[in-house]
Amino acid sequence: MEKFKFAVIGAGASGTLMSIILKTKGYSVNLMDKDTAKVETLKKLEVLKATGKTEAQAKPDLITADTAACINGANIIMVCTTTDAHGDVAHAIADTVQEDQIIILNPGHLGGVLNFRNALMEANCKVNPLICEASDMMFACRTMEIGHTFHSGVKAKIKLASIPAENAKKVADLLKDVFPCYVPASNVLETGLSGGSGMLHSIPCVMNINKIELQQPFDYYIEGLTPGVCKVIEAADKERIAVCTALGVTVEPLLPHLKSVYGLEPDNLYDAIQSCVPYKGIKSPMNTNHRFMQEDTLCDLVPTASIGKMLGVATPTIDMIIALESLLLGKDFAKEGRTVEKLGLAGKSKEEIFEMVQ
Amino acid sequence: MEKFKFAVIGAGASGTLMSIILKTKGYSVNLMDKDTAKVETLKKLEVLKATGKTEAQAKPDLITADTAACINGANIIMVCTTTDAHGDVAHAIADTVQEDQIIILNPGHLGGVLNFRNALMEANCKVNPLICEASDMMFACRTMEIGHTFHSGVKAKIKLASIPAENAKKVADLLKDVFPCYVPASNVLETGLSGGSGMLHSIPCVMNINKIELQQPFDYYIEGLTPGVCKVIEAADKERIAVCTALGVTVEPLLPHLKSVYGLEPDNLYDAIQSCVPYKGIKSPMNTNHRFMQEDTLCDLVPTASIGKMLGVATPTIDMIIALESLLLGKDFAKEGRTVEKLGLAGKSKEEIFEMVQ
Repeated sequence: MEKFKFAVIGAGASGTLMSIILKTKGYSVNLMDKDTAKVETLKKLEVLKATGKTEAQAKPDLITADTAACINGANIIMVCTTTDAHGDVAHAIADTVQEDQIIILNPGHLGGVLNFRNALMEANCKVNPLICEASDMMFACRTMEIGHTFHSGVKAKIKLASIPAENAKKVADLLKDVFPCYVPASNVLETGLSGGSGMLHSIPCVMNINKIELQQPFDYYIEGLTPGVCKVIEAADKERIAVCTALGVTVEPLLPHLKSVYGLEPDNLYDAIQSCVPYKGIKSPMNTNHRFMQEDTLCDLVPTASIGKMLGVATPTIDMIIALESLLLGKDFAKEGRTVEKLGLAGKSKEEIFEMVQ
Repeated sequence: MEKFKFAVIGAGASGTLMSIILKTKGYSVNLMDKDTAKVETLKKLEVLKATGKTEAQAKPDLITADTAACINGANIIMVCTTTDAHGDVAHAIADTVQEDQIIILNPGHLGGVLNFRNALMEANCKVNPLICEASDMMFACRTMEIGHTFHSGVKAKIKLASIPAENAKKVADLLKDVFPCYVPASNVLETGLSGGSGMLHSIPCVMNINKIELQQPFDYYIEGLTPGVCKVIEAADKERIAVCTALGVTVEPLLPHLKSVYGLEPDNLYDAIQSCVPYKGIKSPMNTNHRFMQEDTLCDLVPTASIGKMLGVATPTIDMIIALESLLLGKDFAKEGRTVEKLGLAGKSKEEIFEMVQ
C-alpha cells in the first residue's frame, strides 16, 4: 500500500500541529476548518509552524473550508475539532465519505464513536466507514497565533477504540509507524469513561464562573480548585465511578489516576492538585465558550449522568453542575449533550450495551 | 408604667448599637454575649461607642455572658444574634424567661417566631412569653472594633409580626416612642417571606466561593453578582415567589422590590444591581462562617424549600444551592436549617398554616 493520505478536520491548535507533523513525515495532508476567515489566513501563510516539543514548518497540500474536498481521496480522516462539533462533522461528510475511509476522533469523549455513527445514519449516510475514538488528544498544545501551534507536551500512550472492538487493533497496527502512541483499548466504554474531563474542566469552570465572566485570569488548577471545589469534584467523581461500575467498566477514580500519572504523594485531591508541578501556571478560560465549559459538559458530564439515570445510578452532583451551568449560560446542556438517546443506548441493559460495543 | 428595662442578647455590631441607643434614650439595658472573651473586653471599656448615623457613647448597666442574668427584670428582650443562633438563645432562657416578658427577634427570618416558640417548648419552658419577629434589622451597621459600631444606614420602616398576629400591633404601640420604625405586619408569614436574603446573600456567596476560600476580596454586589449569578438568583426568586403564592402570601419579586426600595430604573436584575449606588463598595465575606452563608441559608433558603416541598411547589434552583453549599462547606444545611418540622408546620395545609399564624 502506498503512503496514506490524511484529511485533518479542524485547524485549531491540535489540527494545525497534526497536519504539520504528518506533512513533515512525508504524508499527503488536507486541512479543513469551517471558519472561512481562518482558512483564508492559513492559505496566505507560506508555512504553518510548530514550536516547542515539535520544531517544524510545513504547508498542507490543501487548506479548505469544504469538508468534501478535504476528505476526497484521503485514507485516514483525523477529526481534531472539539467533540461537541462531531455531529456537524458527521453531517458534513455523510454524502461523500467512502466505505474504506477510516475516521479517527481525536479524542472521542464519552460515546464518541456511537455518537458519530448515529449522526452519520441520521444524515442518511449510505456507507459504514470504520470509526475509531482516541481517549485523549495525543499532544498538549496551544495556539500562539493562527497557523502557529506551541507543542507543550507529548502523551506517550493514547487508548484507541472502535466498534467492533477488534478494529482498534487493526487501525493501531496500520498506523504504528506514524502514530505509535495509539494503544488498542478493549472497547469504546474504556476510552470514553477513562477521561473524566468533566471533573477537572466543567466543575472548576462552573465554580469559577464569576472570574470567567469578569475576565479575571487565575491559575487554573492552583487557584481554581479550592478545597471546596475539590469536595464537589470528589462527590461527582464518586458518581462517575458508580456509573462505570454499573456498566461493568473498571475505571480508576480521579485521585489515584492523577497520583499515578503525575507521581503525586498527597492522599487528598486538593493537596494532590497543589503538588502537581505540570498544573502550575495553566491559564484559565477567559470566556464561557471555552471547551472546558462546552464539550466537557456536553460530551462527558451529560452522557455520564444520562447513562447513570438509565441504569438506576443516582448522579445528583453531576446533575447539579449540569443544571447550574445551564442556568448560568442560558443553554440546556442536558438536552443538547450526548444523551443515551443520541448514543443509541436508550433502554438498553448493561449486557446489551456490552454486546453493542464488542 | 415606668420606663422599660431592656435586655439585648448578642453584642455584635447591631446588639452593641442597640444597647448604646437605648441607654442614650435613658433606658436600663443589660447586654449579653456568649463569647466570654468579648464580654471581658467590653466590660473593661469605659464606654461603648457608635459613630456614623448615630454618634453616641454609653455603657450598659450590665455586660454579661450569663443569659439568665441578662434577662432578669427586663421587660423587653431584644434578640440581636444571627438567626441561626435563635435555638440556642431559646434554650438558654427557657428556664428563667417570664410570662410577661416580650421577646423581639431582630430580625426573625422565615419562621422566626415559630422556630423560637418551638425551641422554648422543646426546652420545657413553662411559660408562654409574647414573641415578635422583625422583618429586618432596623439599622445597617458594622463592627469597627469590639465595642465600637459604625451605624451606616437607617431603615425607616421595619415590619413586626407575632402569633397571635394582633400582638404585633400591641408591641409596636408599646414601643412607638423608642422604636417608631416598627410597623405591624399582617402575620409572621409576611415578615418571614418579605426578606429574600437567601437570594442576595447565600446564592452570590456560593457562586463566589472560590474568592471567599482564597480570601480574595471583591466588591460584593458589583463584582459578585455577575450576569450568570443574576440568572441563578432570578430562577431561585421565581421559586420563592411560587412558594409564597402557594401559601397565599403576596410578596414582591426581588427586582421590583429593589427597584422600589432604591429607585432603580433598569428592568433586569444585573443592570439594576450595577446601578444601585448603595450597593457599591460593600465588602465581601472573607470566610464561610459569614452570616450570608450560614443564617441566610439555614433560615431563609431551607425553610423556603421545605415549605415548597410540603405544598408541592418545586424549588430546584434553591435545592441546588443548598446542596452545593452543603458539599462545599461539609455541612448538611437542609437538615440543620429551619425545616417545616422545626417550625411545627409539617403536614399542614395552607389553610391550617394561616390559622396557626392568625
